[in-house]
Order: sequence, then C-alpha cells, then structure tokens
Amino acid sequence: MKFILINIDNNARAGVIETDHSKIETPVFMPVGTQGAVKAIEHRELLEIDTKIILGNTYHIYLRPGVELIHRFGGLHKFIGWNQSILTDSGGYQIFSLADLNKISKDGVYFQSHIDGSKHFFTPETVIDIQRYLGSDIMLVLDECVPYPASYEYASKSQELTTDWAIRCKNQFKKTSTLYSHTQAIFGIVQGSVYPDLRRKSVNELIEVDFDGYAIGGLSVGEPKDLMYEMTKICTEKLPFEKPRYLMGVGTPEDILEGIESGVDMFDCVMPTRNGRNAMFFTRKGTLSIRNSIFKEDETSIDSNCECYTCKNFSRAYIRHLFMVKEILALQLATIHNLAFYHWLTREARKAILNKNFQEWKRSLLNQINTRITNKGE
Amino acid sequence: MKFILINIDNNARAGVIETDHSKIETPVFMPVGTQGAVKAIEHRELLEIDTKIILGNTYHIYLRPGVELIHRFGGLHKFIGWNQSILTDSGGYQIFSLADLNKISKDGVYFQSHIDGSKHFFTPETVIDIQRYLGSDIMLVLDECVPYPASYEYASKSQELTTDWAIRCKNQFKKTSTLYSHTQAIFGIVQGSVYPDLRRKSVNELIEVDFDGYAIGGLSVGEPKDLMYEMTKICTEKLPFEKPRYLMGVGTPEDILEGIESGVDMFDCVMPTRNGRNAMFFTRKGTLSIRNSIFKEDETSIDSNCECYTCKNFSRAYIRHLFMVKEILALQLATIHNLAFYHWLTREARKAILNKNFQEWKRSLLNQINTRITNKGE
Repeated sequence: MKFILINIDNNARAGVIETDHSKIETPVFMPVGTQGAVKAIEHRELLEIDTKIILGNTYHIYLRPGVELIHRFGGLHKFIGWNQSILTDSGGYQIFSLADLNKISKDGVYFQSHIDGSKHFFTPETVIDIQRYLGSDIMLVLDECVPYPASYEYASKSQELTTDWAIRCKNQFKKTSTLYSHTQAIFGIVQGSVYPDLRRKSVNELIEVDFDGYAIGGLSVGEPKDLMYEMTKICTEKLPFEKPRYLMGVGTPEDILEGIESGVDMFDCVMPTRNGRNAMFFTRKGTLSIRNSIFKEDETSIDSNCECYTCKNFSRAYIRHLFMVKEILALQLATIHNLAFYHWLTREARKAILNKNFQEWKRSLLNQINTRITNKGE
Repeated sequence: MKFILINIDNNARAGVIETDHSKIETPVFMPVGTQGAVKAIEHRELLEIDTKIILGNTYHIYLRPGVELIHRFGGLHKFIGWNQSILTDSGGYQIFSLADLNKISKDGVYFQSHIDGSKHFFTPETVIDIQRYLGSDIMLVLDECVPYPASYEYASKSQELTTDWAIRCKNQFKKTSTLYSHTQAIFGIVQGSVYPDLRRKSVNELIEVDFDGYAIGGLSVGEPKDLMYEMTKICTEKLPFEKPRYLMGVGTPEDILEGIESGVDMFDCVMPTRNGRNAMFFTRKGTLSIRNSIFKEDETSIDSNCECYTCKNFSRAYIRHLFMVKEILALQLATIHNLAFYHWLTREARKAILNKNFQEWKRSLLNQINTRITNKGE
C-alpha cells in the first residue's frame, strides 16, 4: 500500500491510497459490506457511484461462511467478486457489541457466536491469520473497544492491553505473508476512551510499533459530539503526517467534515445504508424522511443536484410510494442515493482541500445540509 | 395496439404486439409489477434482460397510492418511470383472493381493503375508468375468477355474469377515451371453470363483444395440470386467430411451453420472482435450491449458459452465502436471473416456432429442465 499526500489545507488532507486493487482518493468514505456484501446494492452499482474500497467485518465472515471457504476461493475479493479494495476490521468491535458472551484476558478474547452460541477464541495472532486468509488490502489489529462512559482506570488498563495486542499483531504480521498475489497493509488502532493523556500515550506507543496507517477507535460509541471531535484532534495532531488516518464508524455528514478538518483520511459508517433502508435520505439541502406525507405528490427528485440513478429517474412521490408499500426496490434506490451522496461529500471536500478553501466550503455546506427538508419540491 | 403474426408451427405462434410504448415479440413472459414495481429489480435491469412489458395490479395500485395521484403524474408509466408497455388487470382476481370481505352482485362487487378495511365498490364501468386513469397499454375487463373446484351450476352462472360484465366494460371503454397521449387496448377474459362447454360459450360470447385480445382466466387455481392444459386448448381452438391470447397467472416453464404449444401468446406469473426470493433458481439444466449444502463450495455460476449479470459475475457458493446470511443482494441476484431465464425461455420458443421445430425443441428442453440439480457444478 502506498499513501501519497497531494495537498493540505490547514489540517485537512487530500491524498491517494494505492493498493494492488485500486487507487483511492482521500478523504474517502468506505461503504460497509459486513457479510461480504453492501446491503441492498450490487457491486456494479458501487462501481457506478465510484466506490473504490469497501469494508468487510472479520467477525461476521469468520462465522459465516468461514475463512476456509474464503481461502479455497482465493480470498475475499474472489469469493465475493469484488475487484476493488477491501479493508477488514479485526472482529474486536463485534465481539464486544454483538457476541452473546465474551471474556477478555491478556491472551485474547473468548466469545460465543450470536448466531448459534458456538464458542471461539480470538488472539492477536489468530485475527492476523484470519485476515491473511481473507486477503484484505488493509487489515486491522485486535483491540478492545472501550464503551462510553468508562473510568480512567479501566480505560488506562484497556489501552495498555490494546498496545500489547498491537505489538503481537504486528509481530504475527511480520512472521507471515500474503497467501495471494496481492500485498496487504496493517493499521493499528488508537484507544484511550475520552482521556487526552491516554489517547496521546496510545498514539505514541503505536507509532513505536510502526503501522502502515492508524485507525482511531472507541469513538462514536455514545460520547458527546464535542468529545468525539476533541479526541479525534488529539490523535491526528500526534499521528505521523505521512500515514493515513481512519476514523472508525463515523458518521453523519457533519462528523465526516469535522474529521476531515482534523486531518482524517478515511471513514466508514452504516449510516447512509441503514438510514436509507429506514426511508431517510441525505441531500445537498438537508435530510429528508420520505414517509412524510408532504412528499406524497412531490414530482421532484430526492436531490435535484445528484447524478445517481435514483435521482436521475424517480420522483419523491414514487419513492415514497415504494416505501409505504414495502417494496424492496425502495431499499435499493435509497441505498444507491445515500452512498452516492456520501461519496459526493468526500469528493467535494477533496476538491475544496485542493483549492485551499476547505473551511469556507465546509461552513457554507453545513448551513445547507444541517436542516430537515419539510416542504414539497424543496 | 397492433398484433402481427409472423409464423405458426402447428398451433404455436410467433408474433409481435405493438403498443405506443414498445414492440413486444411473442410468445412473451410479463414480469409482475404488482404495486408499480417488480419486486427486487430495478427498471434498468428489466430493460437489460429485455423486458418489454410488465403487469400492474389495478386492485393494489387503486388502494395505494390511489388513481388520483397516478392521474396527476400523467399515468402509471410516468409515475413509476417505466417507458415500456404496461398491462393492468381489472382487480377482480385480488378482490376474490385478497380482500378481507367481498360481496358480489349483478351490478358489481363490494370489498374491504386487506390493508385498512376501507370499503369499496367496483363495477365493470369503474374498473375501466380506473384503468383509463392508470393509462395501461392493455387493460382487462372485470371478471369473476371462479375457484377450483366449483359446481357446474355455480360456474355457469358466474360465466354469464362475466360475459355481462365484459359487455358493460366494452361499452364503457367505447364511451371513454385515453386520458394521455397513447392509446389503450382492452382484453376480454374467458371463464367457465373446467367445463368445456362453458369455456366454449364464454369464448363465443366474448368474440361477439369483440376485444383487442383475449385472456384465459380461472386457470392455475388449484386444478390438475391436465385439466389446465385441456381448458387452455379448448379456448385457443375457438379464439380468433388474429388476436393475441393471454394465459393469466401461468406458470412453470413447462406450463408456459404447453401454453405456447396450444397457441397462447402471453403469460404472467409471480413464480420466477417469488421462487427466486425463496432461493429457488430456474436453469437450463433444471431447478436448483441454492440453500442445499451441496452448493456450499460450488465455484460455478447458477447457469453456465446464462448471460445475465448474476451468472456472469457470481458463484453458487457466494449466492448461497448471501441467502444463508439473509442479504438483500441475494434477492436481487435471484430475481435478475430467474426473470432472465423466463425471457430466454420464451425467446427460444419463438426461435423454434420460426424454425418450425417447436415440438422437437420443447421435448428436448423439457428433458433438461424438468430435473432438480443436486450436484455441485452440474
């Protein structure tokens, strides 16, 4: 993996990540393909809206269909038929949020599958091995994602454990090599809850280990927005300038713009896809809940400035009808649009950074998008 | 609407139906777009697999979103954004099968919506008016779809009512005209249950009324296959040679081939889409239940001779995984393939008719497709 910084505007950065599968212009939003598919959208439709990298969840794919099968098919790209980049997480987040039971020790984490209760044990070493089988372009270390709120003592111990695991992950990464014809990169994950000194300590220790990039984890877990923005800034200030930074699980369009302003390069979130399936659309003029009866006769498109299939072809009235009668097509059209919007957002942010007017652009855009559309044709 | 017969092979017919929206080569299979959308497939994907006409259900669209809204948008084509042909049924079938309550009289039929219990009254005249609002290229008369089994007495009275309603529909059709810039055609519906003399009587009376085409209704409602084939033949023998014939709600690939052999030109059925959503695929080598564990590691495509997006890009193993983890993409890929298969089936049938070897082709194809695929890679 290569990362080239093209331009900076204060702390905001425009760059390119090159993997063996794609050139990814940053800042970038990565659609979430939890189980080897982004929900309700076809691969060719992702290509059409310019998706260059998707995320896969190691926890889910490990459980179903299992890594042996993926290996037999020559890796996750081949198994799912996706020829652009894939980033996989380490499974840690899902173990702590989804698994029926989990028990953490210095060595690793026991958990029971949320599907069938089967028992599993992940160590820093096994999650690297698993991601070698998956063959993701970018893999992540095993970490403990600390819930919010957490005591300083707990957060501190957890941060130490995460550093310890990061070292072991990196060692296992060095001891092993790719199983396929393409290379893999590895990112560390900064933890430390909402404690500035723990965050700084985490960053320093991870830099010591030396990763290809750095994820900022443990945010967007219920803490106030201000704290999230503050912690992000604290991390990016210390993280190596020449390596990509990835803010995990974030977020709203505003969160993403704040992250970019603080120097983050990569984002992922289920928000555009999940909210879309719940009839909520993101637009250049604000959010729009299409079930609102105000849109019943609205002949205009969801977002008149959007170039996606949904906006080029269908009215709000028709899309509202599809949601009201529970047609699957509603989910498809919403997913296409919301992901296209998120990609547009980071693409425009990049342009603004290249033009050195990011802050001005951001301020004026936020004035537009931080509203709710409640009128027909608006 | 124009109908041109290009060639016949015994009773099987190859033709072209021309509406103001599309040229439809017959025999044709029409995907079912009940509520103004074919389930789990986008309009552009229908075009891609060569769909020239879809079906809309008057009952459903009348209830939601309602005909006034459709009218305000300039008709159903414009409301749903579909620029090929649309056929609408009269709502009769759904009133008798779906509505919470229905009460039939000589004048028409009362029913309560299956959605909210609201009360409605359809007469032969109102269903024509409704279909004028919808602006379908081909509309159908109001009929009573007789369940199976039915006594001769009941079937006979019902057939008389259906003829009476057909006359009233035709009169209303003549009294009114299109609300939009395209023309509309009207088809009668043959009833008579499984009684040959009633079927013949129905055909004769409808010919007297004179329709643009003739649907064969009241079949595929639970009667033995032999009876369905026999009744179809009895109808097609008597129906005017120069008008299209439409066998409603039929059916399996074999049913369609039998219908074509008897001289049917048009078919519709939820089977390819509904079965697809239930993980059942139609292929040139038989049907395939993708949940079967035999396909867990199957690297081959669903149907190696199929040109659809699903078969050109994805393995059985991946599609099986998508079904096992309940991804919406599974429904999308299955729908694309099964509809592509049904279109391929009628297209190949047409070629065989043009080549005057329909029966031979049909026999050999049925040997292939009337099996279940139970081996990996088969």
